[in-house]
Amino acid sequence: MIIVKVGGGEGINYDAVCDDIAQLWQEGQRLIFVHGGSHRTNQVAEALGHPPQFVTSPSGYTSRLTDRATLEIFQMVYCGQINKTLVERLQRRGVNAVGLSGVDGRIWQGPRKKVIKVVEDGRTRILRNNFTGKVTEVNRDFLQTLLDANCLPVLTPPAISFEGEAMNVDGDRAAAATAAAFQADELLILSNVPGVLRQFPDENSLISQLTADEIDHVSETFAEGRMRIKLLGAQEALTAGVRRVVLGDARGDQPILRALDGWGTVITPAQPEGAA
Amino acid sequence: MIIVKVGGGEGINYDAVCDDIAQLWQEGQRLIFVHGGSHRTNQVAEALGHPPQFVTSPSGYTSRLTDRATLEIFQMVYCGQINKTLVERLQRRGVNAVGLSGVDGRIWQGPRKKVIKVVEDGRTRILRNNFTGKVTEVNRDFLQTLLDANCLPVLTPPAISFEGEAMNVDGDRAAAATAAAFQADELLILSNVPGVLRQFPDENSLISQLTADEIDHVSETFAEGRMRIKLLGAQEALTAGVRRVVLGDARGDQPILRALDGWGTVITPAQPEGAA
Repeated sequence: MIIVKVGGGEGINYDAVCDDIAQLWQEGQRLIFVHGGSHRTNQVAEALGHPPQFVTSPSGYTSRLTDRATLEIFQMVYCGQINKTLVERLQRRGVNAVGLSGVDGRIWQGPRKKVIKVVEDGRTRILRNNFTGKVTEVNRDFLQTLLDANCLPVLTPPAISFEGEAMNVDGDRAAAATAAAFQADELLILSNVPGVLRQFPDENSLISQLTADEIDHVSETFAEGRMRIKLLGAQEALTAGVRRVVLGDARGDQPILRALDGWGTVITPAQPEGAA
Repeated sequence: MIIVKVGGGEGINYDAVCDDIAQLWQEGQRLIFVHGGSHRTNQVAEALGHPPQFVTSPSGYTSRLTDRATLEIFQMVYCGQINKTLVERLQRRGVNAVGLSGVDGRIWQGPRKKVIKVVEDGRTRILRNNFTGKVTEVNRDFLQTLLDANCLPVLTPPAISFEGEAMNVDGDRAAAATAAAFQADELLILSNVPGVLRQFPDENSLISQLTADEIDHVSETFAEGRMRIKLLGAQEALTAGVRRVVLGDARGDQPILRALDGWGTVITPAQPEGAA
């Protein structure tokens, strides 16, 4: 099983992504496709007069400030426009894709964080009415039912809280939780950078190999905001038994096939102690 | 099996709709829920600078002019905002709802009408690049797989063409095709009017009973634009073996339970010849 996450930044080559998925699927490879939609969401939120706001947590992670109005715009773009155009692209390539959010069938469930702490100008502030949370349970049975019916799941945030509220979750970490639930062979997290860069944004400074025990150091030393969350997702997946994570590039041709070939930052489990 | 279609006009009481669906579902009634989203789509299309346009066919039916940009806005609202907030409402009521468009798993398939004829100021014009079509095939097996997994399907346009393109279809007629595929006991088509009115918009002029063979006459004599399409859907469903269609009101309390009790315009199959 392969879990493919493709981010929603600017410059993603969705046609190439869907070409690769169709090829793998038709060769018999089972996979689940997870996508984002941040760039387009920002555009639509601006147009609808509710411009995006981003906040930074005390531990340094950046995320979208999600009130209820933002959540509904987010759903429009992620679950409506992007999810359905990806399903359409895959259907046109002969893949029986089925697009779902984490709310549907409670595919991604977890606790909602109603109140969050954010850092602004060096000061910590409390924000209420926050619709974000974390995926702690994946409805593997339902996803397996879809796969058994020869359907390719195309998944996107939001997820659902234990109380039944839609909530924004990080797509990379939701993909990691999905990979963990399936004990996947591969988790590919593709975006609009080549992988982890030693000197962001210098694309020639790619770190091509990492082991899980090096993630903390690399994350603190080199990674910028979005990449830190991807590294966290990679760490969570590897800890849970996923065999390999590749942080790769979805802007060019054959983005998935290349990631499987090891283009990008390839992260493998930590060497067992004493193995060297 | 009951198929419930709730339109997307102004004034729909979605909480009451979801209360009724949850009650029926928890009593063991199997059902499929189909929804619209036209009112909200018009608002979003205006806000995004692509205001809605409606066209009238030579046979007098009104529909949304759907170019590719309109289709994507339509998907945002129908598949994103409305579908997911309905799924969320149902999940919060303990129903394992799964929201899908007709594109997903090719649930609703049919021919696309790329070129349409429209009447403007009494003159017929040809429009190209049209993304509308008609549902002629329902993926009953996939819907049955979901029902067998104890999931309640929450369905919305668009549908998918035989060539794999997303296309706008009429939600009432898609619901009718779904009811036909399941040989449903009931098809409820609820909107923001009490049913078929003898003098539209006088809500005291409700026609409370009809047989299928009276539909053509009633449609030509009394019904306004949107109601004519609902009557066409009713006729298609009854012809295909559905036992009863109710055109009812979704603005008040208990809209589904009331429709099942016969509030609205109740349409039954034509009397067999010689039965009187």
